[in-house]
Amino acid sequence: MKTIYNPTRSEWTKALQRPIQKTKAIDKIVKPIMRKVSRMGDKALKKFALEYDHVTIKTLLVSNEEVLKAREQIDPKLKEAILVAKENIEKFHAAQAQPDLVMEVMEGVTCMRKSVPIQRVGLYIPGGTAPLFSTVLMLGIPANLAGCEEIVICTPPDKEGNIHPAILFTADLIGIDKIVKAGGAQAIAAMTFGTESVPKVDKIFGPGNQYVTAAKQLATKKGVAIDMPAGPSEVLVYADSSAIPSFVAADLLSQAEHGVDSQVILVASSEKVTKKVLKEMEEQLENLPRKDIAKRALDNSVAVIMGKEENAIELINDYAPEHLIICVENEDFVVSQIVNAGSIFIGNFTPESAGDYASGTNHTLPTYGYAKNYSGVSLDSFVKKITYQKITEKGIKKLGPTVEIMAANELLDAHKNAVSIRLKYLKEKK
Amino acid sequence: MKTIYNPTRSEWTKALQRPIQKTKAIDKIVKPIMRKVSRMGDKALKKFALEYDHVTIKTLLVSNEEVLKAREQIDPKLKEAILVAKENIEKFHAAQAQPDLVMEVMEGVTCMRKSVPIQRVGLYIPGGTAPLFSTVLMLGIPANLAGCEEIVICTPPDKEGNIHPAILFTADLIGIDKIVKAGGAQAIAAMTFGTESVPKVDKIFGPGNQYVTAAKQLATKKGVAIDMPAGPSEVLVYADSSAIPSFVAADLLSQAEHGVDSQVILVASSEKVTKKVLKEMEEQLENLPRKDIAKRALDNSVAVIMGKEENAIELINDYAPEHLIICVENEDFVVSQIVNAGSIFIGNFTPESAGDYASGTNHTLPTYGYAKNYSGVSLDSFVKKITYQKITEKGIKKLGPTVEIMAANELLDAHKNAVSIRLKYLKEKK
Repeated sequence: MKTIYNPTRSEWTKALQRPIQKTKAIDKIVKPIMRKVSRMGDKALKKFALEYDHVTIKTLLVSNEEVLKAREQIDPKLKEAILVAKENIEKFHAAQAQPDLVMEVMEGVTCMRKSVPIQRVGLYIPGGTAPLFSTVLMLGIPANLAGCEEIVICTPPDKEGNIHPAILFTADLIGIDKIVKAGGAQAIAAMTFGTESVPKVDKIFGPGNQYVTAAKQLATKKGVAIDMPAGPSEVLVYADSSAIPSFVAADLLSQAEHGVDSQVILVASSEKVTKKVLKEMEEQLENLPRKDIAKRALDNSVAVIMGKEENAIELINDYAPEHLIICVENEDFVVSQIVNAGSIFIGNFTPESAGDYASGTNHTLPTYGYAKNYSGVSLDSFVKKITYQKITEKGIKKLGPTVEIMAANELLDAHKNAVSIRLKYLKEKK
Repeated sequence: MKTIYNPTRSEWTKALQRPIQKTKAIDKIVKPIMRKVSRMGDKALKKFALEYDHVTIKTLLVSNEEVLKAREQIDPKLKEAILVAKENIEKFHAAQAQPDLVMEVMEGVTCMRKSVPIQRVGLYIPGGTAPLFSTVLMLGIPANLAGCEEIVICTPPDKEGNIHPAILFTADLIGIDKIVKAGGAQAIAAMTFGTESVPKVDKIFGPGNQYVTAAKQLATKKGVAIDMPAGPSEVLVYADSSAIPSFVAADLLSQAEHGVDSQVILVASSEKVTKKVLKEMEEQLENLPRKDIAKRALDNSVAVIMGKEENAIELINDYAPEHLIICVENEDFVVSQIVNAGSIFIGNFTPESAGDYASGTNHTLPTYGYAKNYSGVSLDSFVKKITYQKITEKGIKKLGPTVEIMAANELLDAHKNAVSIRLKYLKEKK
């Protein structure tokens, strides 16, 4: 981890540069996969499972028996933890619902706005080394609360063709019964085009490797929406002497263990704070099972000493971190000044892990600077808002002339005529 | 306009197929424009103005004098109409604000969610035959209400290098003072990369021709967000014998005059209704100044006779029209069954024009089937929602064990450790 001292704006921009994502080479691999799935459906999914996951899949859909078995396999303590997390996530996401808006804007002109669930959604849950059942909670709960009609999960099977029981248990717990044994770009393709076993969906959610990310981007060209553009995960911790160095170190490391491309940034008020944190990191790192990954992630990472609070705030807003942990004396003021961040963790006893798993907020957040223009996943992500209007005879008499003048000035006479013909009718009716 | 009778699902899907958009050829023209603007800034904008708009631009930014002059040039009646529209749009969009969410999810674990304005937004207002000052209202008003720090408008100048006074007047009225004389892909490029005169923005809004659309898509690869994917405008009118045929005809024509690629669909309960509407359309068409455009748009268009209401509803939801006008006896039930549409106009006295200009709803809506997974522009489009959390010592003691178990089961030990280290500290503190 490199340390830089009170950098100027151009220095920090350079030091905090995110890695450039090369997508062309990946697209070349992913495009033919997408095409094959669109043409051959389930057959292609099975072929790619054999080719990439080295497993023969007979039935793509997880059976009821597999779900029942999973229930028994889960450690009761884990079950209980998942239930606590579910409850918190449900509470916080249910509270995000927006009531219908009904407004008589002027006499006889009523405008409305209503949240309507996106009908069919697909949730991608990565496989790999860890079973990400927490992502099942984070995507499945708001999809359910929104009232999406069809919810499908795609997740890669292990070498025996099984899905991890924690994933099956969690999906079952929140009432998702369509789980497909398919991973990678082929899973995204299946949800984009639909196959015999996999429904075509309107929106695809979920994290994944660079192939999954590329496939999601390609899906957007086929009329499918996605949750947000993806990039490697990142955390920025802003700490002063009120921060407990061992906590800061633990938080930075918890981000670093995600992957070798994770970015971890410490912004500290002084050299003293920085040194303490770095020393703690070195010690804690040695005891981590994933220390090789974490070490490599730390190579992309930087500690910035920023003496002035206002400069630190400017740097944070410019970087727009996915996760932002604020451990400073003046926390209320600093929090109020942050305009670009995915999710903010305040104070010494608020580790990022809490939000990653169980406090109630969503962990699917904008990375790679997208916190400037995107929100994290929330209940909103699973609905679209439809507007409505109803105008009475009195209403069109009142509003009509305004519309006629505006349409005429935009040289759109048929637009004007749609009003004029109604006003004429009402005049003649009298 | 072709008529089809009680089509089966496969027939209607074929008949209502939207035109395929060819983007590769356009991208080839737009990419070098983007590159040149990113390298040469203002100089490139002036060069392209000369090349494409045939005008020499000395100063890209509209001056205060030009705005003052525009105020005087506007017909007082148009001024008044714009003021009425502004008031309605402001009312309806202001009511869309969501209050901050603060929730103690469990004792000592407080989660929050707050709307924060996107800092820098760019609004593209097309030039061409008509001065679209209504779009200035539809984008500028919510940008202002959201509290975006920097709002810039790009719009192409006329042959004399001027911007239409109605656009300047409207922008001034809502307090937008940065207006750039630049149109086409080069304007989108300028807002994507920033130039000497044009700020780099976080999100770009607004309609445009296929070059503008292509440039917006390319901008998304440079970290900029856009309002939504674009396609030709469209309306679907669902009418039975309670609909007034001349009104339905006028509404269909007002969509058809937009452009030759507009799509106009009539779904009628009977042949009788269809015939009456088509006859009215023929008569009204002859009097329209833009009848040549409208005629060509009608070639892409279709009347579908659907005897059964439930089939009509299914067809509408499958097509997911940008604008949906419902003029049927059973309107409450039908409206309640619609799950895919951009904006819905209910009853005989609610023309689409009302929402296009002045009733209060936004006219920037998802076309091309994107109403299945996107909302129209609203106040939401100009904010992102940031989540926050603050956990007390008591809170982490309560929630911590849940996080530890979940993290351990996802094999993320550093995540677990970020909690354990805090719990240990608290235990030792006692």
